[in-house]
Amino acid sequence: MASDHQGPRGPLARLRRGHEELVLRLLRTHGPLSRAELGKLSGLSRTTLYDIVVALMDGGAVVATAPAPAERRRGRPVETLSLHPGAGQVIGIDFARRAVHVAAVNVAHEVIGSASEAHSAGLGWEARVDLAERLVARLAGGALRLGALSGIGVGVVGPVDDLTADAEDAPRPGAPQHRAPGTPARTDLPLLLRKRFGVPVLVDNNTRLAALAEATWGAAAGVQDVLYLRLSHGVGGGLVTGGTLHRGAHGLSGEFGHITAEPDGRRCSCGKDGCLETVASIGAVLEAHGAGAPDLPAFLAALPDDAAAARVLTTVGTRVGTVLAAVCNAVGPDVTVLGGELAEAGPVLFTAVERALLAHLMPISRSRADLRAATLGEAGGALGAIALVLHESPLLDRYPAPDSLE
Amino acid sequence: MASDHQGPRGPLARLRRGHEELVLRLLRTHGPLSRAELGKLSGLSRTTLYDIVVALMDGGAVVATAPAPAERRRGRPVETLSLHPGAGQVIGIDFARRAVHVAAVNVAHEVIGSASEAHSAGLGWEARVDLAERLVARLAGGALRLGALSGIGVGVVGPVDDLTADAEDAPRPGAPQHRAPGTPARTDLPLLLRKRFGVPVLVDNNTRLAALAEATWGAAAGVQDVLYLRLSHGVGGGLVTGGTLHRGAHGLSGEFGHITAEPDGRRCSCGKDGCLETVASIGAVLEAHGAGAPDLPAFLAALPDDAAAARVLTTVGTRVGTVLAAVCNAVGPDVTVLGGELAEAGPVLFTAVERALLAHLMPISRSRADLRAATLGEAGGALGAIALVLHESPLLDRYPAPDSLE
Repeated sequence: MASDHQGPRGPLARLRRGHEELVLRLLRTHGPLSRAELGKLSGLSRTTLYDIVVALMDGGAVVATAPAPAERRRGRPVETLSLHPGAGQVIGIDFARRAVHVAAVNVAHEVIGSASEAHSAGLGWEARVDLAERLVARLAGGALRLGALSGIGVGVVGPVDDLTADAEDAPRPGAPQHRAPGTPARTDLPLLLRKRFGVPVLVDNNTRLAALAEATWGAAAGVQDVLYLRLSHGVGGGLVTGGTLHRGAHGLSGEFGHITAEPDGRRCSCGKDGCLETVASIGAVLEAHGAGAPDLPAFLAALPDDAAAARVLTTVGTRVGTVLAAVCNAVGPDVTVLGGELAEAGPVLFTAVERALLAHLMPISRSRADLRAATLGEAGGALGAIALVLHESPLLDRYPAPDSLE
Repeated sequence: MASDHQGPRGPLARLRRGHEELVLRLLRTHGPLSRAELGKLSGLSRTTLYDIVVALMDGGAVVATAPAPAERRRGRPVETLSLHPGAGQVIGIDFARRAVHVAAVNVAHEVIGSASEAHSAGLGWEARVDLAERLVARLAGGALRLGALSGIGVGVVGPVDDLTADAEDAPRPGAPQHRAPGTPARTDLPLLLRKRFGVPVLVDNNTRLAALAEATWGAAAGVQDVLYLRLSHGVGGGLVTGGTLHRGAHGLSGEFGHITAEPDGRRCSCGKDGCLETVASIGAVLEAHGAGAPDLPAFLAALPDDAAAARVLTTVGTRVGTVLAAVCNAVGPDVTVLGGELAEAGPVLFTAVERALLAHLMPISRSRADLRAATLGEAGGALGAIALVLHESPLLDRYPAPDSLE
């Protein structure tokens, strides 16, 4: 029976992680400490503490510092332990449909830079990783020290059920192969990145990550329960519940674009009829508007004087607000964030969304409704990928920001 | 700064709780242990362990046992520590609209009994607590030992935002009073129960608790992501996400009955139009069926030969399935559970629900759709109240069932 508890996820490993987190938290809260002080504050025995500190120093998370000569008293100088000043830098990469976005944060979880580059639609995964690497190098020329990198978060388009969450695992042997042998597939992405950067890689859907980013640094920063809807070429979103990204049983949470908005509506790319995406995507809006505007920038630019565009956006906003209300009644978010390029249409759209939202929200919830425009724009996916690592990586969990301590 | 971290929820208190949980988990996993063995397994220093054990013995969670005479060797007999065999019993009480339901579990989280009694609709809170006490005493005459009671979970009708989650707090002074002075209100319930039973009390909405019960002991036992819909005199439900009851920002999660099902539908008791509840409540079904059946039992009894009833249930099932699909697309549950008295209509209803559910679910999710009938019946609220305590009480968290250890 005892052997059941010895694995990497067993109680003993969990206990050890708990001790490590405790030591790191004390160093983060108190600054440098001697081993004696650490022992007193942690309540750990000398033997346990010794093991934990050795492991943390081996992993590069903790460094020992000899005191400055002036501070030396009689006898042997007392060495102090502190967090590695560079450890904890995290990169986020968003592999969007036609662009790669990259961002980075330091150990204090401050965004230290971002970069972005468009590419053609069919670019292969190896080339997209090359592009990501060049963008990261551009950041690394500045404030980012690659040697201090602790983890990489990655956003991709579509469901991620087939991607290993942690790239330490090799791709599953039975995974289907539809490419020329040797050509990396989307499923190889975590491993590709791990090989290039040598640090843990976490992957999730980029729209869902944008939700997490808005709840971490954006329009709903610090809010625990957030509903995020993105109106772009596709329509999707994400839920943050209790401060954590909600995934659902098969990684299919947040598919608001495929909630039926018009029961007798058009066939959606997903195969069913009348999805919100058939009404509220950029393509659907331009088509409903007719030949007036060739693309979204032109549509948005002409908006103030375009009565037909206003009518289209009012209809779209009504559908969006109705779907949002259904989701709000189901999950009760504190803040609802509307993002994506179409959200830049502004008040014409937001007024219609809010009217429908309030009409279909339980009356008891109406006074609490809080609809906001997303603030992070196209960087949301990369920033959310960073937030994913900060929230979920076992290594990075060890570095809570001071204000995340209760 | 240090003083910010000393409160009951600060890092030091959390650290202490962590140590206590560790000691309790080791006693649970290994059975009785000597202090020396506990020290070795826990990694805690002698001083820390001494303090923790004293506190746990004071709280009645841990008892010291002298070894049996036959086991005594030379020298001072070695005392062993073990979990209090009776500690960990939990009662659940569901204050439904016209009945009180009570259930109890033992330290192994096995249901050891339940009892139930109907009452008139307007019964005051003091009388309802009296009734609960009598029902509990009936259980206590059997397997329940009140002296070993660790906590009470309570389910009530409606939102619980105004109820203190933990009855150790006195009612808020500014809380509105609309009753004769001295008459207990719904908001006094946690305190009333705490006074009668002398143990911590946790409160939540009883329909949401039924969701947790189905995910713990019922149709979706052990499933991490569950959507539960209850069709009764009202229509409501609950979400379990990642094994935890989902609450939403203002405790208004799971209000599926107030998602708009018919845009031009009837006025709902909540004040808005066309809510699912106006279509799928028991009252709505009986009314749609006409004068044929005076109440639900008669309606259900006549069902096999009643074509009109089948038509009504098909319409209801279609609305229910459409709303469920919207929620499923949003939150991606693993299992969807349909409960409440109306669910006893069986296949006529379930077939229609499933057809609409599949039609409005994203095609990628269809093969994974898993619709089940609730199994816990009217005991669900009380059982869910127990599950709430087992999941959330800081005291009871200390007694994980053996199989909950990874």
